[in-house]
Amino acid sequence: MEKIKEKIRIALLGCGTVGSSVAKILTAQKDILKARHKVELELAYIVDIDFTRAEALDIDKGLFCSDIEKVLGDDSVEIVVELIGGTAIARDFMERSIKAGKKIVTANKALLAQHGNELLALARAHGVCIAFEASCAGGIPVIRALLDGLIANRIDAIYGIVNGTSNYILTAMTIDSLPYTTALKEAQDAGLAEADPTLDVEGIDSGHKLAIMASLAFGKRIDFKKIPVEGIHTLDICDIEYGKELGYVIKLLAIAQRRDKGICVYVRPAFISMEHPLAWVSGPFNAVSVYGHANGHTMYYGRGAGGDPTASAVISDIYQAATGITSTLFTTLNLWPDEAENAIQLSSKDFKSRYYIRLTLEDKPGVLAQIAEKFGKNNISISSVLQQELHPDSDIHDGVPVIITTHPAMEGSVLTALKEVDKLDATKSKSVCIAILDEHVEKI
Amino acid sequence: MEKIKEKIRIALLGCGTVGSSVAKILTAQKDILKARHKVELELAYIVDIDFTRAEALDIDKGLFCSDIEKVLGDDSVEIVVELIGGTAIARDFMERSIKAGKKIVTANKALLAQHGNELLALARAHGVCIAFEASCAGGIPVIRALLDGLIANRIDAIYGIVNGTSNYILTAMTIDSLPYTTALKEAQDAGLAEADPTLDVEGIDSGHKLAIMASLAFGKRIDFKKIPVEGIHTLDICDIEYGKELGYVIKLLAIAQRRDKGICVYVRPAFISMEHPLAWVSGPFNAVSVYGHANGHTMYYGRGAGGDPTASAVISDIYQAATGITSTLFTTLNLWPDEAENAIQLSSKDFKSRYYIRLTLEDKPGVLAQIAEKFGKNNISISSVLQQELHPDSDIHDGVPVIITTHPAMEGSVLTALKEVDKLDATKSKSVCIAILDEHVEKI
Repeated sequence: MEKIKEKIRIALLGCGTVGSSVAKILTAQKDILKARHKVELELAYIVDIDFTRAEALDIDKGLFCSDIEKVLGDDSVEIVVELIGGTAIARDFMERSIKAGKKIVTANKALLAQHGNELLALARAHGVCIAFEASCAGGIPVIRALLDGLIANRIDAIYGIVNGTSNYILTAMTIDSLPYTTALKEAQDAGLAEADPTLDVEGIDSGHKLAIMASLAFGKRIDFKKIPVEGIHTLDICDIEYGKELGYVIKLLAIAQRRDKGICVYVRPAFISMEHPLAWVSGPFNAVSVYGHANGHTMYYGRGAGGDPTASAVISDIYQAATGITSTLFTTLNLWPDEAENAIQLSSKDFKSRYYIRLTLEDKPGVLAQIAEKFGKNNISISSVLQQELHPDSDIHDGVPVIITTHPAMEGSVLTALKEVDKLDATKSKSVCIAILDEHVEKI
Repeated sequence: MEKIKEKIRIALLGCGTVGSSVAKILTAQKDILKARHKVELELAYIVDIDFTRAEALDIDKGLFCSDIEKVLGDDSVEIVVELIGGTAIARDFMERSIKAGKKIVTANKALLAQHGNELLALARAHGVCIAFEASCAGGIPVIRALLDGLIANRIDAIYGIVNGTSNYILTAMTIDSLPYTTALKEAQDAGLAEADPTLDVEGIDSGHKLAIMASLAFGKRIDFKKIPVEGIHTLDICDIEYGKELGYVIKLLAIAQRRDKGICVYVRPAFISMEHPLAWVSGPFNAVSVYGHANGHTMYYGRGAGGDPTASAVISDIYQAATGITSTLFTTLNLWPDEAENAIQLSSKDFKSRYYIRLTLEDKPGVLAQIAEKFGKNNISISSVLQQELHPDSDIHDGVPVIITTHPAMEGSVLTALKEVDKLDATKSKSVCIAILDEHVEKI
């Protein structure tokens, strides 16, 4: 283990929303840090091509730098903080920084989810480490919980609401009864959704974070490309309203569960009961529930995005890296995916769940009997059937909505039955199927 | 910083509920730990006078030891885990262990709240450290959050439900409408309350935990003896029911808030709205909300007591101590109370709050006017007045309950007004006053 230095020099790559918050705390709010930690963090470089945000912070312009080589060649710089985002330049700069012997702090979930194994192996080969608390759930210290606070536990499951944009949109759809496009527009106006919201609303960002968290929780390599990911962009407001009447609230969930034969890992919008511990997590907030064999259920809640909350996680990582804690964890834990074997990734299709199903049917005698026959044939037991009024804001304008909830059934069977139902003459519009998830049962 | 050893020998002092869970995980569940951590934890001694629980675990009896001197004289033992509880023997054994150069892991909140400063100073003088995650909120890694994950934040407030026994009793009173004594009996039968529940139900245990958390959060010495502590043992079921009708739920809250002139720190039962983030924390669960200047609101939720959850925290601390992380935090942070100055501890009486007040009055004309006069005279603005039916399970059997809620008012003024009201001829029973607390406002 290395000796702890009194002063650590840091290079910041990327000065956007998070980067400028990090720069602000390291400079204008330096006194807060000094009151709490003995190690002094000195911002040595801000590497970017656009310094608009940095300039607004009244930072010494001598720190601005557009040449990464200058940073890599400066042996006094110990930690490189990568906040560029994306998987191209960020990856290149990170690899070069590792090769130059710099410790890495990053918030880049896309990069870690897709190339984390190689990057961690490269860091290990060069005797450095990578800290990435800020990559998952913004300011919530959930990576630390997985690597440290929960280390005595065999982890049985993770249930996360880890995309603030999607949760904000779903909350607006649920509480204010806004259709998806209106809610998305509202999120964009509030600065909580990108102009191109694809990564967030299609569940991809949640998948990135899940891949990172699950790999550490289970000590296995998780292949991001094999994680089935569904988003919220196809949700119809009517289903959210009908679900509400049944006592459910919809959340975009990132789930990883230990099963006998592997790990079931997926992202999808699902209904949960109003009593579920994740049901009250609203607006831009995130929460991650972890179920451990000794600890039972613990949950970590907070702001999953935004400059200052994410900067809070970045700076805690800078201190961890600076004081050798990251390196200690990196060398003593068996959880790192670069050294782990591949997980056997199972699909949710292999397990039973309850389902909410909306059919749009012609309103005439005998139709329900036809539907019931298709469900029965596929071994799906119906729990409730409710005919609804057409919802004024729905995309559906013809036929009658019929809401069916099932008892636990295999997803494969449900999909087969719905395929058959959708082919019936009486079916006016493609069926909609949303899983209804109960709280994970603690095994303590 | 020290070199990390491959194998660490541990002595366990006290083999009760938590101790036997720690012993179980270190022996019978050794494989879970091996799969997750490279450092091997070897249980070297179990020190106790009663080995009933240890014997039930099928542990090598060669480890049983009734002489602390044997442990202190064994240089191969690096970590002493103190799970004796109380402040007498535990303190003596801990001091002797520190002087013998052992690192300490403890779950002893009473000892740390009252003598933490001296013990930390002693540890510092002998070049060792004390880890105490398990002292607060059982298995929830909240001490780590304060020392590590949230280190970049000026902490503005902590709101905690940190006593599982009290929360279990309050949940039973709220959900099942049980009077206090019945709910306490139920908790005792479920093994969730001691035969003598004083420490838990009178808020003392919450005060211990609050003293520890607040000292780290604010980097100041908190004097436990100066923390105003109210418990739940005097609560009447009728107030919980009347509060419910007003949309409130009662929780025993441990609160520390940064104020201009100091830190306002206290424990009391209070009403919170059903929408408050702590409202859904039920049964034996605990939760701690922390408000940071950068991170805003983060919350940590889980089981606050019980053998296995607490053992989870103890073992995470053993690993932290074994790998030098505890010592790194102990030497690099400015938050430790042995090195800090005294906090200026303020009373909740100096600040405004809303209040729920129950008066028991003679049912005759003019009484309300007298009450209103006393409130007005003391600058208390009334928000609502509601006359209730006498509650069948209440301790009150004479007069009419009148529920008053106030706008924000100084606690001192409210107490003065109630003293005057209680002296009126029309007052049939002493007034009851419970604060109504809103969620702390994030400053981000």
